[in-house]
Amino acid sequence: MTTSRGFAAPQAKDALGPFTFERRAVGPTDIHIDIAFCGVCHSDIHQVHDEWGGGGIFPMVPGHEIVGTVTAVGNEVTKFAVGDLAGVGCFVDSGRTCRSCAEGLEQYCEKGMVATYNGRDKDGQPTYGGYSSDMVVDEAYALTIPKSLDLAGVAPLLCAGITTYSPLRHWKITTGQKVGVVGLGGLGHMALKFAKAFGAHVVQFTTSSGKIADAKRLGADEVVLSTDATAMAAHAGSFDFMLDTVSGEHDYMQYLNLLKRDGTMTLLGVPERPAMLHPFPLIMGRRSLAGSLIGGIAETQEMLDFCGTHNITADVEVIAMPEINAGYERMLKNDVKYRFVIDMKTLPA
Amino acid sequence: MTTSRGFAAPQAKDALGPFTFERRAVGPTDIHIDIAFCGVCHSDIHQVHDEWGGGGIFPMVPGHEIVGTVTAVGNEVTKFAVGDLAGVGCFVDSGRTCRSCAEGLEQYCEKGMVATYNGRDKDGQPTYGGYSSDMVVDEAYALTIPKSLDLAGVAPLLCAGITTYSPLRHWKITTGQKVGVVGLGGLGHMALKFAKAFGAHVVQFTTSSGKIADAKRLGADEVVLSTDATAMAAHAGSFDFMLDTVSGEHDYMQYLNLLKRDGTMTLLGVPERPAMLHPFPLIMGRRSLAGSLIGGIAETQEMLDFCGTHNITADVEVIAMPEINAGYERMLKNDVKYRFVIDMKTLPA
Repeated sequence: MTTSRGFAAPQAKDALGPFTFERRAVGPTDIHIDIAFCGVCHSDIHQVHDEWGGGGIFPMVPGHEIVGTVTAVGNEVTKFAVGDLAGVGCFVDSGRTCRSCAEGLEQYCEKGMVATYNGRDKDGQPTYGGYSSDMVVDEAYALTIPKSLDLAGVAPLLCAGITTYSPLRHWKITTGQKVGVVGLGGLGHMALKFAKAFGAHVVQFTTSSGKIADAKRLGADEVVLSTDATAMAAHAGSFDFMLDTVSGEHDYMQYLNLLKRDGTMTLLGVPERPAMLHPFPLIMGRRSLAGSLIGGIAETQEMLDFCGTHNITADVEVIAMPEINAGYERMLKNDVKYRFVIDMKTLPA
Repeated sequence: MTTSRGFAAPQAKDALGPFTFERRAVGPTDIHIDIAFCGVCHSDIHQVHDEWGGGGIFPMVPGHEIVGTVTAVGNEVTKFAVGDLAGVGCFVDSGRTCRSCAEGLEQYCEKGMVATYNGRDKDGQPTYGGYSSDMVVDEAYALTIPKSLDLAGVAPLLCAGITTYSPLRHWKITTGQKVGVVGLGGLGHMALKFAKAFGAHVVQFTTSSGKIADAKRLGADEVVLSTDATAMAAHAGSFDFMLDTVSGEHDYMQYLNLLKRDGTMTLLGVPERPAMLHPFPLIMGRRSLAGSLIGGIAETQEMLDFCGTHNITADVEVIAMPEINAGYERMLKNDVKYRFVIDMKTLPA
């Protein structure tokens, strides 16, 4: 066992504060990582607030956008050596026997993946996330990080990055297609970067006129205010694909009508309450409304390698660990461009 | 001009009664059909009741499941000769210039197809449907009917048949797949027949225990009462594809959860009000909720030829024209197995 320092919410909806806990000893296939940076995902807030039902596990140490340096390896480890950079995303294990695991889609494991935090490891112990000094993880669920990239900007790739990369690859986005990105936050700004990198003509949708200039700086070919009915109507029936990154409740139908025949809109966000859906926009253009969940280990590695080659990272604002509660407040007001990342050197001793 | 006899609703929500009106003269590419049978589609009731918004055109002669015998042809007609059987489905023309028309998907015409009734022909005149003695239609929008089939049972193929055949083909249903059919009515019983003919293992979902035996007679491998939570749960995550034929308001999510990863549920019915949808079942299995609208002319002909080869027709109850209002009442109580078809010989002189 090793003692780790972290920040935890003692109970649901509590502010986060210092927390000391035990990690397992480094097993034969495990690596030990000193955490350098951990990104702050909107789902951290949902889970600290216990908003998804089912009952969170408290004290909860959030964090699933983790990068750091390997400080120890088990005797069967082959992918990592001490001193390497390593990353951990949304899960640290899975059933490893089902069809999804066999296909490298561990996020859809039929037995359930083991979430990086607020989950139960195979020994039944709670998992603790990356708002912490260090962690132990099976190398099969750790990622190799390109050395060329800014490490703080890499952390959000482990969730926001793969969550947007995976559906753009699955629905085969390529040169010449017209792609819409709904919402310009942590996920949205990565979707925009990837869709551009894949060669699409990208239209960013936002409710904030204050984000128009920034969306263009980030690479959007066009920016549409979704509150502008005339601007929306001008794009009717024109999109090959739309990626909806918004986690708040909103109207899907106004976007479905912008798809071409046989187009797909894929949802990434999980609002608290269901939305209203009329099938008419689906039926009239044989359109699809789909969903997508993060990505598997192999595809996450592919995404990180792609980012290394194309020099893609998240736009981040680095904060100190004690600033996390204020950070959550700002995130709830959409006041972050575009991801908070905690510098783990700031974790109190 | 030719004078036709039909049954029309004088105003929205009115009972239908005898109505005499003019059809255009047979043009160079037109055929004239003496109508033998016309199927009664649930959408006939929706339109007579003016429930879809936009304002119906009255007097309205419904009917878009039309079969009959060719009695005259224009001098440029090549597909039909006098004495041939011919059919007409949901539309009698389209823009003919867009990508959808070029691809044989006239139902998605960007300029809008010309509906067989409650539409406006290219000359601006209202279109009148198949609850009538005869009609004139461009041969490009008429279908050849296999001689081997029972003609009353063929009529519903022109809408209920193609509406279910097309999505099963588009989503490539084939041997070894597990397919769910939601709802056992006019559309559902055709979906069941086609999915079986394509080699799938077909599970019929119904809310009526009284339909279980009949679903098995029609070919269902399994029948599930959707009100039985235990039976529903036993099928979780197991379907490759589901076809939802229900036009009343209902819960989509209980069916989405039955799909495998990457499975699709396709909606065919248009309820009056939107349903609640939470994206969770879509996201957790990368599932899709899609829609599909009837089918193009080429695929409708393919479907009719397939039915001729495999001896597939609708299960129908033949009624006389004056019985139509009572028929509507029975349809609203789901009291028909599985399609009313009007025998046009019963149209009052």
